[in-house]
Amino acid sequence: MEDNYHKLEVDGDFQSLKSTHNHTQANDTDSQVQILGGSQRDKMGSRTTLIIVAVVTAVLGITLGVLIGWFSSQAQFPDSEAYKIWLKALEGEDEAIREMILEELNADVIKENLRTLTAKPHLAGTPADKENAEYVKDKWDEHGLDSARIVPYNVLLSYPLKEKPNFVYILNPNGTEFYKSDPEEKDLDDGDKHPDTVPPFNAYAAEGTVEGDLVYVNYGRIEDFQKLDEELKVNVTGKICIARYGKIFRGDKAKHAQQYGAVGLVIYSDPADYAADDNTADVYPHTWWLPGSGVQRGSLYIKQGLGGDPLTPAYPSSENAYRYPESSVDLPKIPVQPIGYENAKHFLEQLDGDRAPDEWQGNIDGLANYNLGPGLLDERTVKLEVNNIRERKWTYNVIGMIRGSQEPDRYVILGNHRDAWVFGAVDPSSGTAVMLEITRAMGKLVKSGKWRPRRSIVFCSWAAEEYSLIGSTEWVEEFSKNLGSRAVAYLNVDNIPGNYTFRAKATPNLLQTIFEATKYVRDAPFPGHSETVYDTWLKRNPDGNQPKVSNLGSGSDYASFLGQLGISAVDLRYTFDSDLNISSYPLYHSMYETFHLVSEIMDRSFEYHLAVARVWAEMSRNLADSLILPFDCRDYTANLEKSIAALKEDYEQKMNEHDITFDAIDSAFGNLTSEAVAFHERIANSPLNDPFYVRRINDQLMYVDRAFTDPLGLPDRQLQRHVAFAPSSRDAYFGEAFPGIADLMFEIDKSPDPAAQWERVREHMSVIAFTIQSVATTIKDAESIDTLAPQR
Amino acid sequence: MEDNYHKLEVDGDFQSLKSTHNHTQANDTDSQVQILGGSQRDKMGSRTTLIIVAVVTAVLGITLGVLIGWFSSQAQFPDSEAYKIWLKALEGEDEAIREMILEELNADVIKENLRTLTAKPHLAGTPADKENAEYVKDKWDEHGLDSARIVPYNVLLSYPLKEKPNFVYILNPNGTEFYKSDPEEKDLDDGDKHPDTVPPFNAYAAEGTVEGDLVYVNYGRIEDFQKLDEELKVNVTGKICIARYGKIFRGDKAKHAQQYGAVGLVIYSDPADYAADDNTADVYPHTWWLPGSGVQRGSLYIKQGLGGDPLTPAYPSSENAYRYPESSVDLPKIPVQPIGYENAKHFLEQLDGDRAPDEWQGNIDGLANYNLGPGLLDERTVKLEVNNIRERKWTYNVIGMIRGSQEPDRYVILGNHRDAWVFGAVDPSSGTAVMLEITRAMGKLVKSGKWRPRRSIVFCSWAAEEYSLIGSTEWVEEFSKNLGSRAVAYLNVDNIPGNYTFRAKATPNLLQTIFEATKYVRDAPFPGHSETVYDTWLKRNPDGNQPKVSNLGSGSDYASFLGQLGISAVDLRYTFDSDLNISSYPLYHSMYETFHLVSEIMDRSFEYHLAVARVWAEMSRNLADSLILPFDCRDYTANLEKSIAALKEDYEQKMNEHDITFDAIDSAFGNLTSEAVAFHERIANSPLNDPFYVRRINDQLMYVDRAFTDPLGLPDRQLQRHVAFAPSSRDAYFGEAFPGIADLMFEIDKSPDPAAQWERVREHMSVIAFTIQSVATTIKDAESIDTLAPQR
Repeated sequence: MEDNYHKLEVDGDFQSLKSTHNHTQANDTDSQVQILGGSQRDKMGSRTTLIIVAVVTAVLGITLGVLIGWFSSQAQFPDSEAYKIWLKALEGEDEAIREMILEELNADVIKENLRTLTAKPHLAGTPADKENAEYVKDKWDEHGLDSARIVPYNVLLSYPLKEKPNFVYILNPNGTEFYKSDPEEKDLDDGDKHPDTVPPFNAYAAEGTVEGDLVYVNYGRIEDFQKLDEELKVNVTGKICIARYGKIFRGDKAKHAQQYGAVGLVIYSDPADYAADDNTADVYPHTWWLPGSGVQRGSLYIKQGLGGDPLTPAYPSSENAYRYPESSVDLPKIPVQPIGYENAKHFLEQLDGDRAPDEWQGNIDGLANYNLGPGLLDERTVKLEVNNIRERKWTYNVIGMIRGSQEPDRYVILGNHRDAWVFGAVDPSSGTAVMLEITRAMGKLVKSGKWRPRRSIVFCSWAAEEYSLIGSTEWVEEFSKNLGSRAVAYLNVDNIPGNYTFRAKATPNLLQTIFEATKYVRDAPFPGHSETVYDTWLKRNPDGNQPKVSNLGSGSDYASFLGQLGISAVDLRYTFDSDLNISSYPLYHSMYETFHLVSEIMDRSFEYHLAVARVWAEMSRNLADSLILPFDCRDYTANLEKSIAALKEDYEQKMNEHDITFDAIDSAFGNLTSEAVAFHERIANSPLNDPFYVRRINDQLMYVDRAFTDPLGLPDRQLQRHVAFAPSSRDAYFGEAFPGIADLMFEIDKSPDPAAQWERVREHMSVIAFTIQSVATTIKDAESIDTLAPQR
Repeated sequence: MEDNYHKLEVDGDFQSLKSTHNHTQANDTDSQVQILGGSQRDKMGSRTTLIIVAVVTAVLGITLGVLIGWFSSQAQFPDSEAYKIWLKALEGEDEAIREMILEELNADVIKENLRTLTAKPHLAGTPADKENAEYVKDKWDEHGLDSARIVPYNVLLSYPLKEKPNFVYILNPNGTEFYKSDPEEKDLDDGDKHPDTVPPFNAYAAEGTVEGDLVYVNYGRIEDFQKLDEELKVNVTGKICIARYGKIFRGDKAKHAQQYGAVGLVIYSDPADYAADDNTADVYPHTWWLPGSGVQRGSLYIKQGLGGDPLTPAYPSSENAYRYPESSVDLPKIPVQPIGYENAKHFLEQLDGDRAPDEWQGNIDGLANYNLGPGLLDERTVKLEVNNIRERKWTYNVIGMIRGSQEPDRYVILGNHRDAWVFGAVDPSSGTAVMLEITRAMGKLVKSGKWRPRRSIVFCSWAAEEYSLIGSTEWVEEFSKNLGSRAVAYLNVDNIPGNYTFRAKATPNLLQTIFEATKYVRDAPFPGHSETVYDTWLKRNPDGNQPKVSNLGSGSDYASFLGQLGISAVDLRYTFDSDLNISSYPLYHSMYETFHLVSEIMDRSFEYHLAVARVWAEMSRNLADSLILPFDCRDYTANLEKSIAALKEDYEQKMNEHDITFDAIDSAFGNLTSEAVAFHERIANSPLNDPFYVRRINDQLMYVDRAFTDPLGLPDRQLQRHVAFAPSSRDAYFGEAFPGIADLMFEIDKSPDPAAQWERVREHMSVIAFTIQSVATTIKDAESIDTLAPQR
């Protein structure tokens, strides 16, 4: 879209409109005087007084006439404020504003923001949560946002008990204690630990003590449990599982363990996934590698892959809202506890049974073989004691707004969560530090009167994301009506510092906007590096001739925007070299995510932070200021084309055997593809001087993702309404295309009633075809009867 | 809203804008010349040639200057087309257009339309259905609509078999036939009958033959069956029921009979409900009263109280759409057949058992007592033979459009169904005859270049309404995305001729628009009657100091617009004196609904038709042309206030006993009420010269009913999404307020699990409070952060 837009400026109507506008009233009057001057000189060749008088009179008369004509015409234009609005509407974006914002953003300020934000732990539902919310609100008031408010929700959270720690034990056959895990991470560097640091735990894990044989289940993926069951012939029913972190969302590990009948789960971080390949490499606090004591905290629950307070699906957790009883909600039913690899080694080295498959072997120093179990050597058993409590707490979103000058009811929304497991110097305070710098920079321009975006820009500091994307989901649920009809896009940054390349996940219509913004920003690190963010990204993670952009899963707060309401969304960050084979930055969710880690190790000059700040700000500005929204539907069709091809590769043959074809989908998709091309041709020839036309086209662009939603939701996931993209049901982190098909086809032959399941596949294929056709109809020429009665 | 709007014109900005606009370019130039003329006269008192020359030169110079000044100023306004658009945006509605449309509408043309439309039966799915669709399309093309298209759907319909008629028998104990009902209505007047006339039947009644004792069940309402069961101690299980038509939707009679275990149902029209009180009064063809032979046809099915093809709930019945197997859809499982009172008398006079309660007694001539049964005298039994088939057929909507000049993507939708059980001279062809006259009148203005509405006007001729509102529902489902975001309102006319007063059912925000339109139209009958439609209506059916407007049920094609999408809707017609105590016009759905009936008996001068045409057209024009949409949210709150009071009266005490309060609802409703007042104050002070502002306000007005929808639907009725209004679950014709509560509270003590049911009540009360609050948030100042983060 951005390219297209530029074309318009260069050779389309837009340029002529702009240059017309550049004539101010004063200039025009001057030019009239000059014309008259010319005609006056022509007549000066003649001689009589009469003529002189006539000419002078004529000049005066004409001048008077010009003024009368001018002002009477002006008076006809009803109102000068309206005139300004009208001109503003034609003006479009101001290139200079982009530069001002990009230049204003400052790495040092980001660094200081981060220092402040990470001064102490700020876990959701604790006093620090509220304090930080007030801090952000105050900052936004100070920065000059038009308004900022705290929006509280009362939600179910989960905490370990300091006075009654969680333990994983090895018991001797006589019941005595052979080994006991550490209740806390070790203090490795001055200031790593704070009295408020929450001990390692998995949020929402059931409270309880279980005892039994241990089984190693690799990453705890569904395919791992299947392999155990079918190939390796290890039954986990009644057992305690030990899984390593990585590859998939931890909540799905617990779900799978529970589903396969396990009574408890221990999750640990293996050096294979969280430390350097060379096991001898130094660890935190000298490097970013995970020390043996480090534990990844984290929630086990994302409500329907969307998030939100477990007790109030689909509705906001206001004080008096109806709440489901805890027992009727699908929270984990088994105790689960995370440990570090130093502790895990004690369990793994004791494991009896066959050696696990090669690809299941981890990399704990001194542990030659990872066995499967079940059970430990010498008939020892494992006891898992989890004393977590679930508790309703207040937690606080902060919402700030720069009011749009022309279309205040169109919202470009930036969001980042504020709650952290401990200090959260990476997750999420790196993002918060950047968002605060964007509000400062934009607020400064607004305060100075130099800028007010065409559309409103909304800043969101989310509460309790770590638990289940709660703050964002409750807010989306509360304001679903206004967001559904008015939100332009949601731009999320959770955490930032990778060290290899920029990374974006997004709905495909935002691709060009992302590319365009990344082309304006110099990549980090700056010394000796003059490439743009786009250049490095294209080089390091290409997808054909453009950088790779993945689909959105539910790893952060964009999930409900996209999944419940169909709001186009993007998630921005830097990422790591995939050759490192790490699942995330190694210290993720440990107490070692400190200011020290970021400022001394991961982003010493805060250049990665700055680059994200600039890309995020520029995308926002572009979406807020562009006369025509910079969405491109053709990138959507390109993405879907690949996704449909992949579906066919995976399922078409098998479907054909059940008399299900892709014909209806192919036909609808063909329509969508040609409509997308026609739509963008129409946009290129838009009468940009017609405000209603502009608004109409923008509504169509904005509602493309809305049109992908089905109010009835995906099969078995009523609140996941986007038919084309959703988090995978087997890994909430993964963004799946046409997820309903993947879900219904998964092990269809083993389903209790395959014929009924095939009927559901048949039905959902029809829903997909209908939905794609709906999108095509949404972008048809809105002036035409085609939008309500296509030729057929 | 309309009053408010008028206020604006009189004393607000709008007036000054309008008067400014009324200066055309030519006028302004003239007035300048006059001013100059004045100054010229002052100088004419002096004498020298010099001065004459100077003056003449000055005049020429000034004139030239005026022109230069004028055009240079014009040039500064970027584009003349845009200028016209801009002025048009400020212009608002044109009062003259209203008069032109109202005057153009012609009763004689309506009469001729009706004659043509009723020339032969035009049942859905028959060749005449398609022929009529093509006729309407051709007419619309001829009338000058910008476009008209046929939109076909392939849907499940139901027919009796001519070669194997349906019968209701009385059998002697030995099995021989004692009596057999007539398979057809009698030919009473030349031309009443046509070879294509479908015999009386109830659509979707199960095929089958059952035999057993007969029980009289009065109107077959749920309270009738309850009374039989609990008080009168007559068990209908295994019996055949006979019910009289009236009071509630016939499909609900069948549903209740089935629910209470009956094996079959006979429905007849009792003279008490369909003939004059004086049983000796003359009947059709001399009067409009039902003759003994007349039978009310009609469908037994409205999908979820919304309508649509039974096989494709929620999605359009396109050719390749997925269809549920018939067996999995809740179509009637028992045979049902309608008969006339001439036939019914044979069954009722044979009925054994106790005399039915007084209020159950009907008025068949010569039948002194209506007994309950079970069983007939002399051990005779009843046999019911129904040979209906269900069959997939093509049926045809016709969609026509007048493209809006300024906001073509805003749709004011007029709809009327086209299919009839037989000739349909009242239902629906009276409405079709009127709609065709509106398209002619509006088309003529458009063709002449005198008018193009600001917003698009969409005309819909619906297919297969009689079966289950099928054409409208499938269309709403197919275009749900575009209609959901773009439809302004839906205006339905099914059938017209009553003879007492105008009647409207509507969402409350449309009240003022209806009142306003009815004030412009002189009421029928015209001779000796100079009142407006509004005057008579107010006199004959008042609700406090304004005419009574009821809530919408699902009696016609507005059901899915409102219920699935939350599009504000209205249904217009004339109605009868309620003192007549008739359920509908007596010949409803009989084969005697002929052109003769309408043109000779019910509306000889077609003045009722004309009055509806004018009200319908004027409402449409107003909604299409008004700069600010003429909705009034304050009427919504006034309506809801009463509804909430009624809820409290019915349920509050009982709820309190279960610890459920109205507090959250009261609080949300208080917010809504004050927001509605504030919203209309803002509208009264709108900068009407800002097109984006106008669009924004209009979107808020338009989305009020959208905000009342919940994507999760009502309890047990997923596709009924409007939380405030829906058809009653026990009578689809009745529009219930907060229907979820009525449904959940209905006989709650007798529910299988009262505690669980009370939990659902508690939950739904919370959903209602949330929904009302959502509406309040929708109409908050759209420039304010209040829309996303209210102070609390």
